[in-house]
Amino acid sequence: MGCELSADGLRFRPLKGIGEISPGDDLAEIIARSAAESGIDLSRGVLVLCQKIISKAEGRLIALADVVPSEQAQTIAKEHEKDPRHIEVILGETARIVRRAHGVLICQTHHGFVCANAGVDLSNAPGEDVAILLPVDCDASAKALHAGLVALGSKQLGVVMSDTFGRPWREGLVDMALGSAGIEPITDHRGSRDRAGRELVVTAMATIDQLAAGAGILMVKDAGVPAVFVEGLVPAADSRGTTQDVLRNAAEDLFR
Amino acid sequence: MGCELSADGLRFRPLKGIGEISPGDDLAEIIARSAAESGIDLSRGVLVLCQKIISKAEGRLIALADVVPSEQAQTIAKEHEKDPRHIEVILGETARIVRRAHGVLICQTHHGFVCANAGVDLSNAPGEDVAILLPVDCDASAKALHAGLVALGSKQLGVVMSDTFGRPWREGLVDMALGSAGIEPITDHRGSRDRAGRELVVTAMATIDQLAAGAGILMVKDAGVPAVFVEGLVPAADSRGTTQDVLRNAAEDLFR
Repeated sequence: MGCELSADGLRFRPLKGIGEISPGDDLAEIIARSAAESGIDLSRGVLVLCQKIISKAEGRLIALADVVPSEQAQTIAKEHEKDPRHIEVILGETARIVRRAHGVLICQTHHGFVCANAGVDLSNAPGEDVAILLPVDCDASAKALHAGLVALGSKQLGVVMSDTFGRPWREGLVDMALGSAGIEPITDHRGSRDRAGRELVVTAMATIDQLAAGAGILMVKDAGVPAVFVEGLVPAADSRGTTQDVLRNAAEDLFR
Repeated sequence: MGCELSADGLRFRPLKGIGEISPGDDLAEIIARSAAESGIDLSRGVLVLCQKIISKAEGRLIALADVVPSEQAQTIAKEHEKDPRHIEVILGETARIVRRAHGVLICQTHHGFVCANAGVDLSNAPGEDVAILLPVDCDASAKALHAGLVALGSKQLGVVMSDTFGRPWREGLVDMALGSAGIEPITDHRGSRDRAGRELVVTAMATIDQLAAGAGILMVKDAGVPAVFVEGLVPAADSRGTTQDVLRNAAEDLFR
């Protein structure tokens, strides 16, 4: 186990009063202040944050007015009845188009995430015509925030940056991790034994995705809760893995 | 919203002392007793249960000694170095083999779930050579348990039966819902407005999968926690949807 679990279970607590985030804002300070006001102690546990506030703090915003769509973007936009400037921004974030149908564009981003529109979003942007991009290096963003919060007093803290993802075969979105720091992304039960004493062959749980999904319940878009603190799960002090470790190698991927 | 969220967030509490479940056991009674001993009030909230204890209570067990593998099962077993009797049981649960490679068999079950080995598991079984199958009708199983707990005093209770699933593109397992009752499976933010007043086009969250994933953190296989109660999220009294509603139509499925 890379984490210590409380026998009493977990608490997912919303961080309140974070408000609108602007480029250059010091997120660690804003979160520490919000936690103090919410009566939450950030020393030990896992902070789950919506990707959008990190992207905003990092200025990962593009005004569509400044975008000149390529011919490819115009063709795709026409087929799917989308704004060609939005498509152009999506293509800039895309390493590979995985599927394209029903007005849906499933892309593999340069980071390796497979998601709709390469994670480029128009909703909740500061202006009607602004696209929000994923951070350039999501693990690095999480690591920087982690360092900021450790400097402010956190001891055994995990940081998980999440976003909503669609899934094959199932309707509805679920939050998954885009970046993380201070917490092992996968809890590996391979080699441990089940209750009958038999060795468990494959039980590697994607802890950071479990945390992102649970926290996502509280991140209702119009409630203004972009961050949730999870108490009861304390990452080991020597946790080193990142979200990149969760991405499957192309050679083992059955759903290219 | 089909659910009411507490402003204080969520608590995920393990139900302790449930012990080994045998065919014919009255799960509602066992869970109510465990909750009382754990100091948990089941009146309002969501109960998440590991599929395995429901399958055991329903006797969905097959002794491999009684299984005669077909020729197809023998061929597949040879290619993947598996027990042909295990493969035979898997094929019996399978409507369609989705992918087959690297010793992995991804199947669509008769219920419509896409998962490894059609959900047939050998671990944690009462004997070394027993396969545990998914319930025949997972929503019906959840509904029966829901009715049993309402009869014992629960008022606004959601029941979610979960199992661990692999995912395309990402390593590690995450729990998802197989069956549910008393809770809308999807919370639909379509048509509501974001904080900037812009209409959110698609934000339908798979609430039951979010709950399953969060609860899964506590369902560490060797800890003997097959059930978790979630406080702070209260389903509407008139909730009617089921997990079958979450399964995507084949016509809209980009990853057949």
